[in-house]
Amino acid sequence: MQPFNGNEEEQFRRVYLDYNATTPVEPEVIEAITEALREAWGNPSSSYRPGQKAKEIISQSRESIGKMVGGCSDDIIFMSGGTEANNFVFHTAVKYFWDTYRKAKIHGKEEGPVEMGGALPHIITSNVEHDSINLVAEQLVKEGKREVTFVPVSKVTARVEVEDVMSAIRPNTCLISIMLANNETGVLMPIAEISKRVQALSKKRGAPRILLHTDAAQAVGKLQVDTKELGVDYLTIVGHKFYAPRIGALYVKGPGVTTPVYPLFFGGGQERNFRPGTENTPMIAGLGKAAELVHRNLERYENGMRETCEYLEQRLEEVFGKEKLHFNSHFSGSKRLPNTCNVSFLGVHLQGRKVLSLCHRLLASVGAACHSDQGDSPSPILLNCGIPPSVAANALRLSVGRGTTKGDVDVVIEDLRAAVQQLEGLS
Amino acid sequence: MQPFNGNEEEQFRRVYLDYNATTPVEPEVIEAITEALREAWGNPSSSYRPGQKAKEIISQSRESIGKMVGGCSDDIIFMSGGTEANNFVFHTAVKYFWDTYRKAKIHGKEEGPVEMGGALPHIITSNVEHDSINLVAEQLVKEGKREVTFVPVSKVTARVEVEDVMSAIRPNTCLISIMLANNETGVLMPIAEISKRVQALSKKRGAPRILLHTDAAQAVGKLQVDTKELGVDYLTIVGHKFYAPRIGALYVKGPGVTTPVYPLFFGGGQERNFRPGTENTPMIAGLGKAAELVHRNLERYENGMRETCEYLEQRLEEVFGKEKLHFNSHFSGSKRLPNTCNVSFLGVHLQGRKVLSLCHRLLASVGAACHSDQGDSPSPILLNCGIPPSVAANALRLSVGRGTTKGDVDVVIEDLRAAVQQLEGLS
Repeated sequence: MQPFNGNEEEQFRRVYLDYNATTPVEPEVIEAITEALREAWGNPSSSYRPGQKAKEIISQSRESIGKMVGGCSDDIIFMSGGTEANNFVFHTAVKYFWDTYRKAKIHGKEEGPVEMGGALPHIITSNVEHDSINLVAEQLVKEGKREVTFVPVSKVTARVEVEDVMSAIRPNTCLISIMLANNETGVLMPIAEISKRVQALSKKRGAPRILLHTDAAQAVGKLQVDTKELGVDYLTIVGHKFYAPRIGALYVKGPGVTTPVYPLFFGGGQERNFRPGTENTPMIAGLGKAAELVHRNLERYENGMRETCEYLEQRLEEVFGKEKLHFNSHFSGSKRLPNTCNVSFLGVHLQGRKVLSLCHRLLASVGAACHSDQGDSPSPILLNCGIPPSVAANALRLSVGRGTTKGDVDVVIEDLRAAVQQLEGLS
Repeated sequence: MQPFNGNEEEQFRRVYLDYNATTPVEPEVIEAITEALREAWGNPSSSYRPGQKAKEIISQSRESIGKMVGGCSDDIIFMSGGTEANNFVFHTAVKYFWDTYRKAKIHGKEEGPVEMGGALPHIITSNVEHDSINLVAEQLVKEGKREVTFVPVSKVTARVEVEDVMSAIRPNTCLISIMLANNETGVLMPIAEISKRVQALSKKRGAPRILLHTDAAQAVGKLQVDTKELGVDYLTIVGHKFYAPRIGALYVKGPGVTTPVYPLFFGGGQERNFRPGTENTPMIAGLGKAAELVHRNLERYENGMRETCEYLEQRLEEVFGKEKLHFNSHFSGSKRLPNTCNVSFLGVHLQGRKVLSLCHRLLASVGAACHSDQGDSPSPILLNCGIPPSVAANALRLSVGRGTTKGDVDVVIEDLRAAVQQLEGLS
């Protein structure tokens, strides 16, 4: 494991199993950041050498990130993080809709947009998205600016099913935004299949084209993410989920040429005007280095995490018995992230939060970190996946990392055994 | 001076005089960032100890930044940079206008907003702002969403004059946004005076209140910036102009309580929902440390820069003669930044870009870094300040830093003398 370096943590030999919340930063990445902080602090827009050096670092990083997701370096736009990237895509889709719609009216064409007279832009997403999708969608419905369909995931597979997405499409649909892997269950969504179907439909429909976005925050660095295979127009990349710093990027297939881009900000022209603001050279350098590591070592990372995660589930079954457990990350017919084990101990007093509070070594969560103030109410994501409330309330999300060892797992199992025993003793 | 560390730069003993474009990062600040990268990588929203440690660092930083600008820690909202902060303020002002206006209509009141029937929100700014203000304003005028008055600065003082701002106010004015110090001339704007007059007027006018914003990107770290004295509602803070990393913050006087805040993004609830997105702990730690340094050492920094800058101007006069120079940063009756010397060598072949291209040691610019691709056309900012085109085309912006020495100045003077001589020999 990557230990927290504080003395206190060392002493108790904490085991961090919350890699879906955030990861540590790889030492090589820290080095890249520090080097850039020291030596590439020039303004990348300045024409003298030190500015140009910063610019080169940014170009290199852009290329590494492009490579990591099977795109070109031109397809990468740096953003402050996943939240900005997701908000950006929604903003772009709506602007694109209005632009296409208006132009179509001017030309007085009969086909396509005209038949939508008076319609608002319509967006399709799922009911298990991160808040940076979910709340953007809700907000804009509230403001009366667009219509949104939250396609429910199947309660059997915990995936959005392709047919459900397709049947939600309306003449005014301009964006489909579905995450690549769920942060709580780890379940993978059928993005490539959706893409194929949507592309076929788009050819028939004409403008406005249906744009396809996937938030790949949880998938990048854990399994192969190839924008070409996925066939997406936009893909959100979040550094701090793959051992990079807190910065993000948006992959856009041919931004401004093949795929529309409408900036959220206006300013000094950086990032080809798509995202102005003096570039965060050191963080960009770190993101690039982390992407390079993923590109080089993904297979090893993925296999390592899968092995550890499988060992974790096996040990849980051995120690607690199958009848005592419910794996909220196992769904019939669905693939999932190699690192995510979402498990409930069955029993009236075994709420996830209570179990965790009695663990002296395990650091984990009951769901998304940004919901950590939600008290004991069960995760709405799990409920939407068909997990019964009493089971969902007991959920623990255990997500392993690159460095998590079987020894760490053994420590966690011991910790959980003691916690569960203590809680059952109280009842 | 703070040298660029590359060998090439050392060899030629480069002197960086472009501190208004960006500054190096103070070693203590780099240390704070690196420490946070290594030890405070937990998700600040996670309830276990390492997450809480990150949260504490963020709180501390917020406090230091609040203190630096004479506000409370609650008044500070972290943002990705100045561009975001400036865009945020414009976004907020417009939303606030519509909200206030709509509510007034619902209540059917006679006073205030109702008399504005049909009006668009009106914003006042100056004609010498940074592009992250200027282009936001222009874009939204283009979209037909608001009206903007670009108050011209006086060609005598290079300041917006208080009377000009006041007479631009309309019943539908919701925001006045004027920079605190100009990035090219260094001239300080009379924000405190504008504030007093606007507050008096606002009391009479009622809702929607006129919000006052200042972009203090160039002022922070160079002279005392006190939001109470300035009487502003919003103030933009940009890390990389005061030896901090590429991150920013927005001061908001009592955000959401005293002063309206409408988020640009929606997401995981961070920054009290004003600006969601997992917090960039290391950059925030760096920004906090840099703020602490400013709070502690401002007098020394300011005096040091002023002395060096005065020495620079004195040497320029001695070497080139007064009749050969025009200081584009000297305006009758105006105060200016202690570090900014904007100077033109007078002569037909002495365009700023040409002079710089022949300097082997000086690293400087002819204006804002984000306009570095503008060729030889004179800076619109200088033209708006009344500098004749032939003089403006020859401008060099020389901005000194905390570590710039008189020895550095001597090197620069020698460099400039040789460059000017060479250009004049060619003619």
